[in-house]
Order: sequence, then structure tokens, then C-alpha cells
Amino acid sequence: MDLIHSMLAGDRLALARLLTEAENLTPAGRQALDALFPHSGNAYLIGVTGAPGTGKSTLVNRLALHFRGEQKRVAIVAVDPSSPFTGGAVLGDRVRMKDLSGDPGVFIRSMASRGSLGGLARSTAAAVQLFDAAGYERILIETVGAGQGEVDIARLAHTTLVVEAPGLGDDIQAIKAGILEIADILVINKADRPGVENTEKALKSMLDLAHPTRRVYLHHGRALSAEPPAAEDTSAWVPPIQKTVSTEGKGIPELAEQIASHAAYLRATGGWAARDQARLASETEIILQRTLMDQFRAGEAGTRYNEVLQEVFRRSLSPWEAVARLTGQEPHTPGRAESQPGRPQ
Amino acid sequence: MDLIHSMLAGDRLALARLLTEAENLTPAGRQALDALFPHSGNAYLIGVTGAPGTGKSTLVNRLALHFRGEQKRVAIVAVDPSSPFTGGAVLGDRVRMKDLSGDPGVFIRSMASRGSLGGLARSTAAAVQLFDAAGYERILIETVGAGQGEVDIARLAHTTLVVEAPGLGDDIQAIKAGILEIADILVINKADRPGVENTEKALKSMLDLAHPTRRVYLHHGRALSAEPPAAEDTSAWVPPIQKTVSTEGKGIPELAEQIASHAAYLRATGGWAARDQARLASETEIILQRTLMDQFRAGEAGTRYNEVLQEVFRRSLSPWEAVARLTGQEPHTPGRAESQPGRPQ
Repeated sequence: MDLIHSMLAGDRLALARLLTEAENLTPAGRQALDALFPHSGNAYLIGVTGAPGTGKSTLVNRLALHFRGEQKRVAIVAVDPSSPFTGGAVLGDRVRMKDLSGDPGVFIRSMASRGSLGGLARSTAAAVQLFDAAGYERILIETVGAGQGEVDIARLAHTTLVVEAPGLGDDIQAIKAGILEIADILVINKADRPGVENTEKALKSMLDLAHPTRRVYLHHGRALSAEPPAAEDTSAWVPPIQKTVSTEGKGIPELAEQIASHAAYLRATGGWAARDQARLASETEIILQRTLMDQFRAGEAGTRYNEVLQEVFRRSLSPWEAVARLTGQEPHTPGRAESQPGRPQ
Repeated sequence: MDLIHSMLAGDRLALARLLTEAENLTPAGRQALDALFPHSGNAYLIGVTGAPGTGKSTLVNRLALHFRGEQKRVAIVAVDPSSPFTGGAVLGDRVRMKDLSGDPGVFIRSMASRGSLGGLARSTAAAVQLFDAAGYERILIETVGAGQGEVDIARLAHTTLVVEAPGLGDDIQAIKAGILEIADILVINKADRPGVENTEKALKSMLDLAHPTRRVYLHHGRALSAEPPAAEDTSAWVPPIQKTVSTEGKGIPELAEQIASHAAYLRATGGWAARDQARLASETEIILQRTLMDQFRAGEAGTRYNEVLQEVFRRSLSPWEAVARLTGQEPHTPGRAESQPGRPQ
């Protein structure tokens, strides 16, 4: 518990050690997460996602600097495996990172791959919770916008930025991947490059198309009940498009303003609490799923698991039939109450 | 059952309809999957993964054409949301796809996003199983190599190709993401571009470093038992690096030879059956997880779920404490028998 008190008193070394314990879910880490949970719930979580090559990391870096200018303490959680925060720095990012590295009001944490997506989501949640409890007021969560699971992690922030860039060969890639739908703010980074008009035009026309869908998505995907707050109904948020040149800091103050507007919108409409709750529900569900699997494996049916698997391997039992035999009931099919992470029923 | 017989007799329309039923897991789809499961197990599954912009889709296209030249029936399952197979065709891919589109020996299936990764993995497994039962001898599974979940899908094929390309701004991106470790064959596509020597050099030195790790990974990640077949121990597979220019078909015959070598290696060492079994075990586990959640929700504790969640929302109970209360036992922590998809214990 000494570490916890030191961390709450602002000791960075204690925070770093607790982060490691918490991400690895050691007994000490679990204890810290439980003890610190009541201290969390104050941070503003900002998810930043987009394809590799869009310059997400530099954008995150610049936003962090901007928030520092507003005297906010900033944490960066880099979930993107291609982020310079995660691995060795490349292409001059090391230089740019210097702007932040000496600043005691900034903490950068990289998530190594945890072998499974559940593990990654769990570790990210643990880091975010610790930063929150430690008094970091802005937490930037950077994920690569190409994997469904990574997108889900960014989506559960209060505000989600989707980053595009001109000339990546396929300007509408993000749209096809469906990540446009999760954007609260669209950023066209590297906006000094040729093709920026085309990217903007493509995004605008997709927004026009997507907007009615988006409102439905907001309600069904993010609000906790089927009946969203009436206020959210009457003044739905339309995602703005913001152009930036992160390497030069261009467009960053404007982007920060858009972010502040979205926070105000969430506060006014009840969306803030709804997103907080969706995130906590998703975290709880991930833990519950693994615990149920543990219970199952430890129980009577668990001892028959390998035996039944052998029948699947011999193709005398389909995977579905195997699960029906093990659990004594018909396996889950989407027709029967499919649930999504973060969408408790 | 009429559809099933028509499909087994080679009716493409029946296959298309069953694919839709199976991917959506309708009762008819489930019935078809169960009935056809004993007919599966003959196809050679080839996973193709890599970052956006590496030209995976064109490579897959060319490989399909090559296998057609060997009189093999080929199915393509495109899980990559940025694949031209999945959305609208872009950048001339429509033209290239013409090579395949009139061929009755080829079937291309795109996986729409299923909202959750479990859903995506389940739908992909369903499609693969149907193609297998329908007599498609080569099944190419294309996924974007940036999301952990998508990488897992490609990893569970018999042979996994990891595709790189020079000049993407960060040549060693795949390495940082850890996807080098899952490669049975490394492909440097777009090998007529500047920087190809650097990409090759980087991959080679990473391979030298990674190779011992890779052998451990192979045994622990893929074999079913902690004791792998001795044969695999003594002659571990070293992933070759193959350069290709897919748009011109260059390097494709050589790549096909590498693929055939890997298949022969798997057959000789017992790796073939081990990978089949790892895939089936992973599929079963995904179904089991969802079914356990269903059982839980339907049971007594499930009725208390929303109530306990409210306490989490009020931050009077941490997510871990909530799960402990709901399940009557300490939640899963990685220290206690962490299990990975596809790694039954």
C-alpha cells in the first residue's frame, strides 16, 4: 500500500511500478486497481485511431503539448503496435518526443502486445484507471484503426478522433472499415500534402450519407438504454472535419477547440456518463468472460473438455455440438440476444 | 437439406445462400454447419496478412490464378476491411479481379464486419468450413495485419504469409507488431520499388534474431501439447523471404513453390494435424465463451448483473470486485492459467 500512497502523492516511480503490476495483473496490481478505483472517474479520455501512416503519434504528441499549455496533466497510452511510443522510435519521432520527455506533467505508457485482445483491452483499462486515479486530467489513447479490437478500445473513450491523411493510396479506407461511424471528430492530418481536397470531399460526402446512421449508432451503440436521453435526440452531434499538419503544429489549437466542444456536448446531453458507463460495463464483461471460462475449466465439464475436443478433431462432433454437449444447452447464436462489448442488456 | 445436397453437388448459388445462412448463424446455417462438418478437413488453408498498402489483395489474386493453373478449386475469404474484395473496388483492382470473376473454379467471399471480433472469427470459420466441405482445395484467407484479432485469424491457417512492401514509411512495422513471429513465409511485395534492399536486410536481421524465439513460439503457440513432435524439434522451419511484384505476376511461381514446401514440411512433421487441431480448438473455445455468458445471463446471478454494474458505475465496486461478487470466486488473473485462443490446455 506504500506504493499506492506514494503514487497518489505524485511519485512517478511509484506510478511506473504500479502500472507494470496492474497491467500484468499481479496480486499487488489487482489490489492497487481495487483500492484506486474509487479515485478514478475524473479524467477526460480521448481516443485517437487511424490507419498506419496517418501520423497519429505526432498528432497525439502535439495535442499533449497543447494540453500542457493549458496546465493539464497528460498521459499517453499507446496501444498502436506501429507507434513510435511502443517500439523503437523511427523517422525522427525520437526528436519530436523530446518536447515531452523532460516534462513531469506528461507520462507516456506503451502497451506491449498481450497475446490476446482481451488481454490488451484489460491492460489498457488498467493503465487508464491508474492514470485517472493519479490525477492525469487528459488521457490520450492511441490505437491503430485497422483491427476491430483496437478500434473498440478507442471507441470507449469520451471523445474519439479518427485520423485520415491524403495520398495513402486509398483515401476512403477508414470509411470502408466502418471507423468513420465511431468518429466524434474527423482529422485530416498531413493536410499540406497533395490530394487533401479529395480526401475532404470524400469524407464530407460520406458524412452526409452516414449521418442518419450515425445517430442510430450513437443511441444503440453507446447509450446504455434503448431509450437515449431526449436531449441527445434533438441535438445530435455532427462530427466536424479538422485539417492539421501535426509536424508543424498547424490546426492543433482548432482541433483542441473541437475536442472541448465535444466534451461540452457530452456533459450537456448525458453522453459523458453514458460513455463512462459503457466503458466500465465493457471492462467488467471482459473480466467476467474469462472468469466464467476459468470456472468452467475447473468444474466437472472442464475435465471432459479435452476429451470432447478429441471428437471434434476426429470430426465426429462439430464445434457447436461439442459446446452443446459440454454445457448441456444449445450454444449461443446471434439470433438469441447477441451482446456487444460495452452494451450491457 | 436440399441446399446442402445442391451445394455438395457443386451448385454455386446453393453455396452462396448457405454461406449467408452460416455466417449469420441462422438455424438453417447451424444445421448446415453441423451436417457438413464431417465433409470438411481436406482443404489447404493459407493465411495472408500484412499492413494496408502492401498489396495483399493483388497477391492473393495472383496466387489464386496460379492455383487455378494447377487445376485446384480456390476460395478467397477477405477479412481485411480495406480489401477491394470487401468494399467497392478501387485503384484498378476491379480490372484485376476480372481475371478471376468469370472462373467457376473460384469463389470470393467478403466478410463484413460483425460488430465484434468473436463474431468475425466465427463467421470466417463458418465460411472456411463450408468452402472446405464444398470441395475447394485452396482457401486463401486475407486479413489486415494490424489488429491482434485479425492476425489471429490468419495465424490459424496451415500456412501463414506475412506481406511487407518497401517504402511504406516504416519498413519494420510488421516486426514491431510481432507479426513476423507468425510468418511461415515472408513476402516482400512491390519488390520493384526503391528501398527493397533495406526491407530485405531488415527482415533478414530480424529473422536471425527471432529464429530461436520462433521455434519456441511454434511449439507453445501452435502444437497442442507442451511436448511437440520430436521431428519438428530437429528440423525447425526457417521462414523464407520471397520477393514478388504481384501486379506483374513476378515471383508468384516461386512463392507457390515455397508454399508447397511448407505444406510438405507440415505433413512430414505432424504440424499439419497440430494446426488443424489448434484451429478447431480455437473455434470451439469462442463458441463456448459466448455460450457460458448466455448461461450466466439466463441464471440467477445474471439477474443481478445490471444491479452490480450500477455499483461499478457509482465506483463503489471495482470491475474485479463486481465479477467476484457475481461469480462467487476470485476473477481470472493471468497468473492463474492464462489461456490463449487456439491453445487448449
